[in-house]
Amino acid sequence: MLHIKEIAQRTNGKVEGDNNINIIGVCDLKIGKKNHIAYLSNFKYLPYLQSSNASAVLVSNSFNELTDKTIIRVENPSISFFKIVSLFFPKEKISNIVQDSVIIGDKTVVSPSCSIGHNSVVGDNSKIGDQTMIGPLVSIGNDVSIGKNVKIHSNVTIYDNVFIGDNVIVDAGTVIGSDGFGIYSNKGIHHKIPHIGKVIIGDDVLIGSNCCIDRGTLNDTIIGESTKIDNLIHIAHNVEIGSGCLIAAQVGISGSTVIKDNVSIGGQVGLIGHLTIGSRAKIASKSAVFKSVESDEFVSGIPSRNHRTRIKEDYLIRKLPNMNKRIKNLESSNE
Amino acid sequence: MLHIKEIAQRTNGKVEGDNNINIIGVCDLKIGKKNHIAYLSNFKYLPYLQSSNASAVLVSNSFNELTDKTIIRVENPSISFFKIVSLFFPKEKISNIVQDSVIIGDKTVVSPSCSIGHNSVVGDNSKIGDQTMIGPLVSIGNDVSIGKNVKIHSNVTIYDNVFIGDNVIVDAGTVIGSDGFGIYSNKGIHHKIPHIGKVIIGDDVLIGSNCCIDRGTLNDTIIGESTKIDNLIHIAHNVEIGSGCLIAAQVGISGSTVIKDNVSIGGQVGLIGHLTIGSRAKIASKSAVFKSVESDEFVSGIPSRNHRTRIKEDYLIRKLPNMNKRIKNLESSNE
Amino acid sequence: MLHIKEIAQRTNGKVEGDNNINIIGVCDLKIGKKNHIAYLSNFKYLPYLQSSNASAVLVSNSFNELTDKTIIRVENPSISFFKIVSLFFPKEKISNIVQDSVIIGDKTVVSPSCSIGHNSVVGDNSKIGDQTMIGPLVSIGNDVSIGKNVKIHSNVTIYDNVFIGDNVIVDAGTVIGSDGFGIYSNKGIHHKIPHIGKVIIGDDVLIGSNCCIDRGTLNDTIIGESTKIDNLIHIAHNVEIGSGCLIAAQVGISGSTVIKDNVSIGGQVGLIGHLTIGSRAKIASKSAVFKSVESDEFVSGIPSRNHRTRIKEDYLIRKLPNMNKRIKNLESSNE
Repeated sequence: MLHIKEIAQRTNGKVEGDNNINIIGVCDLKIGKKNHIAYLSNFKYLPYLQSSNASAVLVSNSFNELTDKTIIRVENPSISFFKIVSLFFPKEKISNIVQDSVIIGDKTVVSPSCSIGHNSVVGDNSKIGDQTMIGPLVSIGNDVSIGKNVKIHSNVTIYDNVFIGDNVIVDAGTVIGSDGFGIYSNKGIHHKIPHIGKVIIGDDVLIGSNCCIDRGTLNDTIIGESTKIDNLIHIAHNVEIGSGCLIAAQVGISGSTVIKDNVSIGGQVGLIGHLTIGSRAKIASKSAVFKSVESDEFVSGIPSRNHRTRIKEDYLIRKLPNMNKRIKNLESSNE
Repeated sequence: MLHIKEIAQRTNGKVEGDNNINIIGVCDLKIGKKNHIAYLSNFKYLPYLQSSNASAVLVSNSFNELTDKTIIRVENPSISFFKIVSLFFPKEKISNIVQDSVIIGDKTVVSPSCSIGHNSVVGDNSKIGDQTMIGPLVSIGNDVSIGKNVKIHSNVTIYDNVFIGDNVIVDAGTVIGSDGFGIYSNKGIHHKIPHIGKVIIGDDVLIGSNCCIDRGTLNDTIIGESTKIDNLIHIAHNVEIGSGCLIAAQVGISGSTVIKDNVSIGGQVGLIGHLTIGSRAKIASKSAVFKSVESDEFVSGIPSRNHRTRIKEDYLIRKLPNMNKRIKNLESSNE
Repeated sequence: MLHIKEIAQRTNGKVEGDNNINIIGVCDLKIGKKNHIAYLSNFKYLPYLQSSNASAVLVSNSFNELTDKTIIRVENPSISFFKIVSLFFPKEKISNIVQDSVIIGDKTVVSPSCSIGHNSVVGDNSKIGDQTMIGPLVSIGNDVSIGKNVKIHSNVTIYDNVFIGDNVIVDAGTVIGSDGFGIYSNKGIHHKIPHIGKVIIGDDVLIGSNCCIDRGTLNDTIIGESTKIDNLIHIAHNVEIGSGCLIAAQVGISGSTVIKDNVSIGGQVGLIGHLTIGSRAKIASKSAVFKSVESDEFVSGIPSRNHRTRIKEDYLIRKLPNMNKRIKNLESSNE
């Protein structure tokens, strides 16, 4: 339980309305809960403000609606709300326990401030940094380097020779460092191409559940810092992803494609190999990207093309029955 | 080995033809096997009836073809056949053994009629119901509730605060309860949105292999009773799925989308966030659903739209070369 | 470190240029590394030959450019290069150790030349062949047969009654043998169809990470020899895949579809059930295959159709604004 004034203080906010209430938790605005605090980040949710059961609401400094709810004015309601959530749900503490059932190979150095869950297996000559939390049933290979304050959840597999930076999160079931789908076919025989590259994952990267990130053939597969990737994503060998990218679920990125910084990729997009996607490009969900994309370009469709162009074409596809009829009319009037 | 009369009795059926044969197993109708029983559920398979090696065939009461095979007339040949399969392949008995290698946390209550496979790990304050079977190498978090007669297969990960009803099946490698892909980007910084919602899975739900079901942010992710989902499916945070839905492989459902009861979704469909899909709607495979779908509507395509409309447009796309030629003809006759 | 003459000898090649250098590793041609060897497999990479830092380059016998680099002429630079990689990175030796933490069921026979990683679990009545390497945290069921020289990586799940040939590789997190998505819906009730078929995987098959291969209902799911499949692929019940196929990431193949020999399927392709894909057919990435494909046919698109036809239609879709304008012109000149 926190007093509304304490919440205001922690968020550098200013209370208006009843400033003598206690808050017992956080809630959404739409339905809300009594004695809980919600936030209003987007004016489209304004209609819920009055009907919500929330007892207090974080709003932005520019908010100027009449309400009988207690409000706290803050610079950024979203970010302040995340802070309040962490007051009510403090981060699990790292237990600093490497369970007895964990198996750790030769010459592997595990920071004493780590915790490793039951039945996990770590290979030889690896390194796990301070405050890092490895879940149960995780498989980590040889010559792996994992930074500080990393979270690796259950049933993850990290092959040999993978480098993971600081503050990385890897959700359950993800596989990092398997050989890529490099097949050289000659005279009807499929030869497996050797993969001696690494996987290098920068600081502050988030990787969702059941993803697959393949190692490089001769060079490395790289994910730049602060890039966030969702669930069930395929990243092939030699792919290089810049920093600050957002990649939604079920995207597939084929071999050797280069994605520059701050690119956004919607769900279920596929990119063929050997492309370059320029910085800040946006790719709409379900697109199939068969050619490189310029910086700041917004593409969509199968095959992907400039989004506005595609929207116009799509509009005309809707008009095809009408166009067909108009051609018929012209033909009959020409007879 | 079962006598044909016993099979008839177990299925409330009526034998015609040779009623003194022994059946040693089940088979398909198309090729069939001697001394085995098959079933005819759909008249398109009628051509295989005579050529099949099966010695007996389950048919519906309305069957009126001539055949020299032994037949058993039943109300529903499919359902009766499934019953016969279970006579020949009785369900694995739950071993009622929690293996010594299993690790179980504090205050966790495991029914004495459960079995838990080798090296599985269960956290604190969880509950596992009667007759439930947990496979080997399963990771179950804290504050998890699992109902009666549930099957959770190998290498599944269940995070903290997940509620699973009775008679649920979760196939191998599936992840339930990881944080969703909630990223709030402000001034070039990606902030991870806290996820304090639960995942709630109703009775009789089936979840295939290597699926990802994320927990909610403030509210819960919900899968309604009797809904069946295939492999490699992504269900994002705050998604609510009703009862009796069928969702085929590799579907992705984005955050906060609501799917009502008895909806059918084909393979590789993607739905963006914050949509509502009405009851009994059907979505054809590979569709990209960018707007809400009415109850009972059938949509397909990228972007998805009414299926019949789309079929007509597709027909006219096939006719584009012809339309182009007709415009040319008109132009030349106009010169 | 290997002398250039030794490398030439091992690859049946012929040195030209400085034949007295030592090579310490392999590299790519584009950037290259001093004292390393690269290869030139495709003349489009010729521009990198001079600028590369590589000290030696494998070229084909037909190469006839001027260069001051040391070259080794060989019949096939790619295959020779893979051989050289294996000289510098000798295959991990199988340790021939079944770790103490491994649990092996009754009547299961494990070849003494196998190695099995920590905490893996093998059921009853199974068989693991010579020189096979099973990673840590692998779950193998009952009545499973695994051939010689197989590699099964971490966190893989193999259900009961799966047959795996020789020289197979299964990457991490893959699930083989779960029940298919066989649901028989009758009067609003979804009945789970029993699955008593097997999964049979031929020799020399490669299966990527986090794939799902379901068992058959009455018959078996089959993957033919030398077929290679990438990551996150869904293969449904009763699918039969021939030999020598290449299937890229995130493909989904629905129930009972038959894929003949040497078929190539691009990434994110979906195939509905009960189709036949003829030998040597090619399916472009992202296609949705709703009808069978002839041998040697090349299809693409949603729905898939002859690739050339589709390319023409796509070209005319790009021309729709122009066609619309021309119709307008005709209409106004007709007024």
